[in-house]
Order: sequence, then structure tokens, then C-alpha cells
Amino acid sequence: MKFKMLSLVIVGALLSTAVIPAQANNDAMMNLLKILRDKGTITAQDYELLANAAKADKEATDATEAKVEKVAKKADEAPKVSLKGGHLKIKSNDGDFSTQIGGRIMLDAAAFRSDLGDETGSEVRRARIFVKGKMYKDWDYKAQIGYAGNLISMKDMYISYNAWEPARIRFGNHHMPLGLEQQTSSKYITFMERSIVSDAQDGAGEAGRAMGITSFSHGDNWTLGLGAHLEGTSKNLAFEENEDWGVGGRVTFAPIAEKTKNIHLGAAYHYQSYENDGKELGVSFRPEAHLSPVKPFTTGNVGQLDDGLSIGLEAAGVWGPFSAQSEYTYFDMNSSNNSTKGDDPNFNTWYVYGSYFLTGESRSYSAKKGNFGRVKPKGIVGQGGSGAWELALRYSYADLENKSSFGATGNKGDVSTIGLNWYATPNIRFMANYNWTAVDNNNLTKEDVDGNVFQMRGQIDF
Amino acid sequence: MKFKMLSLVIVGALLSTAVIPAQANNDAMMNLLKILRDKGTITAQDYELLANAAKADKEATDATEAKVEKVAKKADEAPKVSLKGGHLKIKSNDGDFSTQIGGRIMLDAAAFRSDLGDETGSEVRRARIFVKGKMYKDWDYKAQIGYAGNLISMKDMYISYNAWEPARIRFGNHHMPLGLEQQTSSKYITFMERSIVSDAQDGAGEAGRAMGITSFSHGDNWTLGLGAHLEGTSKNLAFEENEDWGVGGRVTFAPIAEKTKNIHLGAAYHYQSYENDGKELGVSFRPEAHLSPVKPFTTGNVGQLDDGLSIGLEAAGVWGPFSAQSEYTYFDMNSSNNSTKGDDPNFNTWYVYGSYFLTGESRSYSAKKGNFGRVKPKGIVGQGGSGAWELALRYSYADLENKSSFGATGNKGDVSTIGLNWYATPNIRFMANYNWTAVDNNNLTKEDVDGNVFQMRGQIDF
Amino acid sequence: MKFKMLSLVIVGALLSTAVIPAQANNDAMMNLLKILRDKGTITAQDYELLANAAKADKEATDATEAKVEKVAKKADEAPKVSLKGGHLKIKSNDGDFSTQIGGRIMLDAAAFRSDLGDETGSEVRRARIFVKGKMYKDWDYKAQIGYAGNLISMKDMYISYNAWEPARIRFGNHHMPLGLEQQTSSKYITFMERSIVSDAQDGAGEAGRAMGITSFSHGDNWTLGLGAHLEGTSKNLAFEENEDWGVGGRVTFAPIAEKTKNIHLGAAYHYQSYENDGKELGVSFRPEAHLSPVKPFTTGNVGQLDDGLSIGLEAAGVWGPFSAQSEYTYFDMNSSNNSTKGDDPNFNTWYVYGSYFLTGESRSYSAKKGNFGRVKPKGIVGQGGSGAWELALRYSYADLENKSSFGATGNKGDVSTIGLNWYATPNIRFMANYNWTAVDNNNLTKEDVDGNVFQMRGQIDF
Repeated sequence: MKFKMLSLVIVGALLSTAVIPAQANNDAMMNLLKILRDKGTITAQDYELLANAAKADKEATDATEAKVEKVAKKADEAPKVSLKGGHLKIKSNDGDFSTQIGGRIMLDAAAFRSDLGDETGSEVRRARIFVKGKMYKDWDYKAQIGYAGNLISMKDMYISYNAWEPARIRFGNHHMPLGLEQQTSSKYITFMERSIVSDAQDGAGEAGRAMGITSFSHGDNWTLGLGAHLEGTSKNLAFEENEDWGVGGRVTFAPIAEKTKNIHLGAAYHYQSYENDGKELGVSFRPEAHLSPVKPFTTGNVGQLDDGLSIGLEAAGVWGPFSAQSEYTYFDMNSSNNSTKGDDPNFNTWYVYGSYFLTGESRSYSAKKGNFGRVKPKGIVGQGGSGAWELALRYSYADLENKSSFGATGNKGDVSTIGLNWYATPNIRFMANYNWTAVDNNNLTKEDVDGNVFQMRGQIDF
Repeated sequence: MKFKMLSLVIVGALLSTAVIPAQANNDAMMNLLKILRDKGTITAQDYELLANAAKADKEATDATEAKVEKVAKKADEAPKVSLKGGHLKIKSNDGDFSTQIGGRIMLDAAAFRSDLGDETGSEVRRARIFVKGKMYKDWDYKAQIGYAGNLISMKDMYISYNAWEPARIRFGNHHMPLGLEQQTSSKYITFMERSIVSDAQDGAGEAGRAMGITSFSHGDNWTLGLGAHLEGTSKNLAFEENEDWGVGGRVTFAPIAEKTKNIHLGAAYHYQSYENDGKELGVSFRPEAHLSPVKPFTTGNVGQLDDGLSIGLEAAGVWGPFSAQSEYTYFDMNSSNNSTKGDDPNFNTWYVYGSYFLTGESRSYSAKKGNFGRVKPKGIVGQGGSGAWELALRYSYADLENKSSFGATGNKGDVSTIGLNWYATPNIRFMANYNWTAVDNNNLTKEDVDGNVFQMRGQIDF
Repeated sequence: MKFKMLSLVIVGALLSTAVIPAQANNDAMMNLLKILRDKGTITAQDYELLANAAKADKEATDATEAKVEKVAKKADEAPKVSLKGGHLKIKSNDGDFSTQIGGRIMLDAAAFRSDLGDETGSEVRRARIFVKGKMYKDWDYKAQIGYAGNLISMKDMYISYNAWEPARIRFGNHHMPLGLEQQTSSKYITFMERSIVSDAQDGAGEAGRAMGITSFSHGDNWTLGLGAHLEGTSKNLAFEENEDWGVGGRVTFAPIAEKTKNIHLGAAYHYQSYENDGKELGVSFRPEAHLSPVKPFTTGNVGQLDDGLSIGLEAAGVWGPFSAQSEYTYFDMNSSNNSTKGDDPNFNTWYVYGSYFLTGESRSYSAKKGNFGRVKPKGIVGQGGSGAWELALRYSYADLENKSSFGATGNKGDVSTIGLNWYATPNIRFMANYNWTAVDNNNLTKEDVDGNVFQMRGQIDF
């Protein structure tokens, strides 16, 4: 009985440890041996040998166990490498650090026919390589080298602090908060080029990337961006002068923000000061076709501008495969040498477009970011599918006419575009756009001019 | 007997499951306990306790087993990171995605002595960083930034579709199918510079990278490349004109295609249209030495070219450590303002070279690619070896003389080169070249000129 | 007895194998079964079945064991990916290969007030992306693309051989051995800009990166660097001339070399030959503020220089949170067209500075490298800390006056700087500098000029 009690105690004690998960023991054998010995079924000598063997078995099992734990721990602690969707991302185990390396390639060809002559051309429209990442949980950064128009330049080059509750703070060369098209990556825009509304914003020095600081707040269905900036690295090509500066903000709201059904409303205000030191200004731009050899749209010479403000309004909606989008921007400029005449230049630009996915996908709106993102085709080429097809139409208008001390200047015109997009995979897209442009009093010959362009793009992002 | 039968049945049943591989059980113990209990060797109470202990042992073993499976699965599913040969490659588990990051550095120094004066110089001949990868199984891409001659530009910048049986389709900025030297990476060419045959091809706008589309088919011992292109990013530096275009093809065949013994035969045809809008053309190039301050070889002014065609012939062979290689290219140009005189310009260029590995390696020919690749030294510096040594001799000739409405123009000359290469590792190479150049009627002083250059290179690719 | 002996032999034999670590067996069970059978406790039939079950159990355990070994081996052999401190590094299992991808971003803004006018500006002061790595154990390389002053250029672009005992040999575009500030990465310098001593060294063509070859030896508390070079990629912008060349060396010694207490002494000598082919030379530079629109410090026209030599002396010390640093450089130039007058130009430049960490950190000196490195704040923002704060003062002086055949030329002046640095994390730093500059006979108006600048930087390296 003594032995039995003892064995019970031992077995009980061992069983209680056996509840600890995944700790291999050899309790049954050890106890059985004790019982058999106590009962005399095996000799004490046998017991000794068998108990040693059992112990050795246990040790071997424990060693395996320990090795498993070690391997599992090592695997858990190692940074995670991901190639999801072809995008390389390395993330530390605790998520406090990450590095992503990627980029984009956009390859264009175009044929122009216009009153100003014909032209055929090709270019690497955009090629970019970036490194971005997270640092010590609260910080992130992006360093992006870009190539466009046969020039290499710096694109995103910023640091962000993300741990302040009300807003993310970002500084460096980055996008100012203005314009739905401007806030949507060139990887995701519906047409090959942003509209002439964006060109006008760029020309006014307000949109695109600039050296500055922005705060970005958002809720589930709204965003608020506020920014102050000097000149961007692509505009600021000389040291020997004061830089232009601006301040502005953009607010967006999505009364409906479902996955494939949503409405986007947005407004932006921007004040821009020109430190041009007596230089006369004016802006010309292309007809929504980057290979265009001419820039028929122009403000003409608008004199020495002091400053200007712009007001932008945005609306967009997605209803399953349908979507529509529109922006309007009004520019009101102040000029020292024109202001006595009360005829400071002001400009109006707007566009409206619609798109339809023949294959049933939806444009991908983010109410938390206030912009559009990646379209994922239902069937992917390379995984048995045949991609997504999107048909789109856009009409853009710009009135850049103005009077100044130099007389009437600038012009007005429009661009109509039909576009067909094929998304072979979520990150490989082929685009074809046909544009008709009509401009009164064009920039070169000062006559009304009509032209059209057929342009194509192949793009990938990685 | 009842018990024994039962135990047999149980044991049988359990044994049958034990055939399932790698599912740790504790069947022997469980069954032994039952038998001992049934025989009365142990009490029912003992049995209960021991069976519980055995069960706990089994659970612990199962938990270990499960953890191993989990760790193994996680390891299997994670992308594979490789640094083989110092080249970083990350590949998804299913092989459908990959990313490679790499590049090359070529560091040159040269000393020139010639009738035109002496010069000493150095440069980063090529520095490149690329990201390339596979996307959704069927696609690949490459984005490569290059630095040469103190300029940064885009090199390979393309997208390929690889799932069409007859041929790989590639578009964007990439190499057109023309010329054995052109098709062989600068990492692997035998001399520091490609021959003046390549310079002539480049000058004609036919070789090197261009924005275009190519198809590439191959068998075990043949290749066929067909391409159509506009201008490349390095040539197309302005928007304001029509781009030159061309079409061409290259076919190669290897009657012998063993690892260290092979014969390569190739031919290429290229048609090039010049959209020069009335500009007079002409090309000059250096004497197979990139640091050369002068470009003594010249076609002179060949007037306004309409178009041209070139025919190239290639032959190469490898016999163990020996190899020989030769190319001939004939250029036949058509000129509007010369053509009435029946004296449109045409040019002849060719080279022949031999190489011998003192250390017994062979040049690495790929009959499936129709080009030469990486030489792997038998002994690697850093792994106990001392690298591979290669001795090479080349003779190149160019006849660029032609008559036009501007009178006799252009010149002819040759370059003889002796080269010594040391491959310290498969990707680190040191080169020394000594060139003798003799040109009649050189480009600058219009006199016959002799010169020589000693140049050295250290290169690595990663 | 026979059986017992047998069992003893068997058990003994098996136990001896059980000593082999981590080889799970089922010896106890196998042997127990044999004993029980031999004793007749179980039948031979039972034995057969139980032994089979035990064998199956063992096989299952062995399979688990094998799988663990396989997973562990695979994990051991795979390259190690690390994101330590946010720096991506991939290292082969044997340590013979590695690849690192990283870079830096420095974002500046500045406001100038001076007798020469006011200016406000911003820039990406430096943006760099690099790939570097180890190859076949003995070799390493670095390829670094840099952006500064709106230009992209090549920075480090070199190959090193590291297996020669006495010294590391490095060639390509890299830093020559000269100057403590020059040898300290721009990521780690105490003020936003290096001093005018460095500007003078750069201007003389001696410091910074050049195409050359250096040897670098070190002990625990000394370093010796020797170098010979042609022009660097940032200086050598044309092919059509001989390149300047130079040779020099730098030696450092640390009589005290503890972690937070050390003394650095250094000296450098440099000979520079100017192949200027009759060009007249002269150098101007900014007042330790890169956004400065003017370069008030100047040597004036110093005629046609033949060559020059410079002698540099360095001293620095760290005492816990305090540190001090000073450099002096003397330049002695030889000029063909001035030398007959015995008034060849020579220049003196020096600076001295002190810094104090309010939060108790120490500047990080490496006696084996002879330079300063990364400061690690005691508390890191993002990990519960609030960063490190450093206060610093510098006084710099340059005497560039000289007499030549062109009369008295050049000027002299000083810059005083107060700096405040906040190290949010080991790799994110915010800097504010206020400089006062006073120059006699400034470069533009030839009058004495006073000016000051407030400049700020945000920087990250990854």
C-alpha cells in the first residue's frame, strides 16, 4: 500500500505537470517500471536498466522539444519577408520597423495629328524606384528617385511622425493637400494623364510635390489635410533667389463609403505667394498628352504676380462598375503692375469624367485617404483570369483668358478623351487614350487650333 | 481470451493508424497497460493512473508534432531569400513572384599617347542599380538606373510577357536584336570596350537599347529575335520632333553546343528610318577606349539620310580554354540629297578576336540565348583559389569613307588590342587593355594619326 | 539468467546509443517488452503486437525528429535578414556574403539676413540610396547614388579587398584620407555643415571623394590611411583634359580610447598636382550654410597653380557628455606665373568646437576608424523615451589673403555657430544652427560684410 500510495502521489504529481502543454515526458513508463518492480514483475536490476533507458528516451524527446522551441522562436523573431502582389516588404517581428523597396515603370507611345503638324514619339513616361519604411514604431520615411521627360529627379523624400493622435505630421518633399487627381497616384489615375485642371494647379505652383510640412487627419469617412510649403525640388533649380511659398488645406467627406458604392465630396483652398523679384510670369501646358511637342494652352504673360489664391471643389461617386468624377478650380491672381487697372488675372478650369468596368470591377475609393487606389481585376492574367476592362470618357475645359496692362492675353479650350484600360493584373495595366483638343488663339500661332492624339501606355508597379 | 482478442483488435486497429507516417502515438504503452491490467499484473487503479500518464505523454508528443508542422509550414510558405554568388534574390514559395536587387560597378583609368596629344584620366565607366522581378507567373520587369560618362540615365526599363508559347514578348526600353557583342552584357565582354563595329551600329541608331517591342524565341541551339523600335531614352532627348524608327531581326544557330565546346553562327538584318527633318547627319566614335578625349573615327557629314539598312554576320567558337569571335556589319544608307548622284554612303566594319584562359576555364556560351555569359574561375579568391587568367587579342577595322555631294568624306582605320583579364571571383574582374589605333584622315586634323592607350578596369557585379 | 544477461547486454548497447544526444528511441519499452515476454508476463503473441506498436511509435518519433532537423537545417542555411535599427541587411549563413540597402534623407530650410540681402530657401540637402555588400568573404563593395543641390551624382562607388593582413585596399570613387570632419559621415557631424576648413580642403581638390586607391590600416587605438587619386566623379565633368592628381596620408592616435572618455590626435599630409593647362584658379565658398546664395569667402584669382601641399592637424576629446574638437589646415601652393615673385599663395584655416549632451549621452568615437559615429539616445521616441539633446558651439576662421602678380587678392573671415541637436532616435535627428559670419573684402562687393543665417534640418538614415 505504501508503494501504491507513493506511486499515486508520484503519478499525480507528474500528471499535474503533464497538463503543461507540449512538455514531453515519459511518466507512464517511469511509473509502470516502478510498479512492476514493486510488484516483483521485474527485478531491481532490470528496473535500473529500464529506468535509465526510459530516462534517455525522455531526454531525447526533450532535446527534440527544445530544438523545436528554438527553431520556432528563431522563426518568430526573424523579420518577415513578403512578396505579396509582387511588392517586396520586410517587417520586423514586433512591427516597429519595416523596409519596402519598389517602384513603377510607365512606357508611352503617341501619335499626334494637328493643325500644327504631325509627330510620333515614345518615352519612359515615369520610372521610379523607392525605399520606404517604418522606424521605431512612430516614424516613417520615403526616398523615391523618379525619371520623367528624360530627367532624373527626387520625388517623395520625406519623414513622418505618426504617433500624435490628432494628425500625422509629414515634412520634406511631398504632395501638398490639393486636388483629387493630384492626391491619386499616377499608378491609379483613370486616364493616361491628369487633366488640364492639374496642369493649371501645377502652373500656379500650388500642386504636386513641394518642400513643406503637412498635417493629415482622418476619420472613417472624412479627411483633413493642412500644409505650408516652399518650392519643391523639381521647381527650385537655383539657390540665388527667395523661394515661392504657399499655405492651404483640403477637406473631404464621404456621405456613402461602402466598398463598391460611395460618394466623395471635397474642397480645397490654397494661398500662394510669388517671390519672383520682378519677373513676369505665365504658364503654358500640354493637351493631356505628355509627348505633345507643343503646349497650346497658355495664360500668356500675366505680368509680375504678387500672390494668388485658388479654390477647388471635388465630387466623385462609385456605383459598382460605374464611377464619375469631377473637379473645378478657380484661380484668382494679384499682380503689382496690373492691379491699378483692376483687371488682375483669374482663371477657371474644370473636368468631368465617367468610367465603366466591362468586367464588373469597381474603382477603389478610400474614404480614410480621400483618394482612389488600386483596382483588383476579378481574374488575373497568370492565375487563370483575363484581367479587367474599363471604358472611360472625360471632358476638360480651361479658360485662361485675361486682360492685363499687356492687353488681352491667354486662351481657352477643351480636351475630350476616350480611354480604354486593361488591368492584366492588379499591378500591370495597359491604357489607350484618344484625345481631341480644340484651343482658341493657341500659344504658338495665335490661331484657333484643333488636334488629336492617340496614345498608349504599358505600366507596372512593384 | 476475450481480453487478448480485444487487445489484438485494438492493437491491430492502432497499428493500422500507426502506418500513417509521423503521427507519434503511444500505442505500445496503452496496449501494454491494458494487457497487464487484464492479466492482473497491475491493478485497475494503477492502470487508470498509468493510462492517464500515457495519454498525457502522447498529448505532449502530439503538441510537439503540431508545432513542428506549423514551423515547417511557415518556413515553406515564406518567400525564399537567396544571396547565391552575392546576388540578392527573393522568391515567393510558389515561384510566381520574385524580386532581385543588384547592379554593377566598373572603375576605369587610362593613359593616352597619340599624335593628337597625351592624356590621363579616370572614370566610373558604368555604375548601375536595378530592381527586377517576376509578377503573377507570366510577367517580368526590369528597372535599371545607369551612370556612365558622368550622366545618369535609364537603361533597361521594360515589361515582358512570358506565357505565350512561341516567344517571349518584351516592350519598353531594352536591347534590340542585333550583334553578338551588343547581346553580350558589358559585364561579360572580353575586352574593356565593345569594338568599333558596335560603335558604328550605335551611330546608325540601330543597336543598343531603344523604346520598342521584341519577340524572342529559342530552341536548344537556336534563337530568333524580332524587333521594332522608336528611339531609346538615351538618344531621345527632345520632344519636338518625330523619332527615328527601325525594324530588324537576328537569328543564331549553334551546330555544336556543348558546355566547353561550341560553335555560334548568327546573322542580323536591320532597317532604320531617319526622321531627321532636314538635318545633316554624321557619326564619330572613339578608338575602343571610353576615356579617349577624341573621336578619331568619323563618317563625316553624310547629308540628309532617309533610311539605311545593315546586315550583320557573326561567328564564334569555344574549344576548352580557347575561343574565337568575329562580326562583320555592312551599312547601306539612302540619302535624299545624295541619291541623285548614286553615291549614297555605305560602310564596312568588322573585328576578329581570340582569347585563351591560362587557368583552363572556358568562355560561357549560351546557345539558348545566343550570347556569352559569366565565366566562373576554377579557384575563387576568398575561397582558397587564385582566380582565372585570360589573354585576348582583337583586331577591328572600320571603313567609313564615302562620297557625297559634299565631296569625299569619312575615314578608315583600325584598332589592335591586347587584353589581360583576371577573374578574382565569378563577379569581380580586373582588366588591362593596350590598344594601337591607326586612322587615315582623322576627324580633327584631317591627317593620318597613330595613337595608343593603356587602360585598366576593376569591376564587380552584385 | 540467460535472458537477464541478454537483456542487460541489449539494454546496455541501447543505452550507449542513447547517449547520442537527441535521438529519440523507444528503448525502455522495447526492452521491457522483451523482459515481460521472457518472464512470461505477456505472451509471445502480445509481445509481437506490442513490439510492432512500439516500433511504430519509434518511427513516428523519428520522423518528427527528422522533420525538426530538416527545418532547423533549412533555417540555419537560409540567409539571415535583419532590420536592426531600421537598417536592412541580408547576410549569408557562412557570413561570406551580405547585401545592405539603405540611404539617408536630409531636409533643410534656411533664412539669411546679411549686408548683401535677405533670402529664404529650402532644399533636399542630401538624399542617398546605396547598395553595399560583402562578396566571397574577402571583398566588399558600395554603390551609392546621391542627390544634393538639385543634382544627382555618384558618391561612394568602390570595391575593397579586405584579406591582406597589413591593410584594407580600396579603389574607385571614395573618400581620401584627410581631415577628421571629412572622415566623419554627414549623418554624424555635429553641425549642419562641415566647417570652412573642409571647404578649403575641397576647394584645393584634396578632400572628399575621388577616383583613387587607398590603404587603410589600424590597431586598437591608431589608424593609418594612405591614398593616391585622380579626380572624383563630382569634379571630373569633362573628358578633354588631363586630370589633377594627388597623394597623401593621415595618421591618428588615441592615447585614451574608452567608451565615453577618449582623446583623438591626428595629422595629415597631402600633395596635389594641378593639370590645369594654363587655366587660372581660385576658390570661393559659402559661410557654413549650404543654402547660402552667396559664397563670400574667396581666394581670389591665384593664377596658374602647378601644385600645392597641405598639412592638417586634428585633436578631439570626449569626457562623458562633453566633447571638443579642432582642426587646423595649412595650404602652400606653387604657381608658375607667380613663383618668380616669391609670393606663392598660402592659406590658413582652423576651427574649434565644443558640444554637450544635456541628456547625458556621449559622442561616439571610434579609435579603430579615427572618426566619429552614431549617437544613441538613452531614450528613443517610439520606445517610451524622448530622445537626446545636444548643445554645440563652433568658431571657424579662414585666412585666404595672398599676393600674386595680380596684386593682393583673397580675403579672411570667420563663422560662429550655435547649434542645437535633437536625436529623436539613433537615426532620426533634428538640427537647428544659427551662424554669424564676418568677412573682410567679400567676394562680391569687395567690402567687409556681416551676415547671419538660421537654418534647420530634419534627417533620417536607413
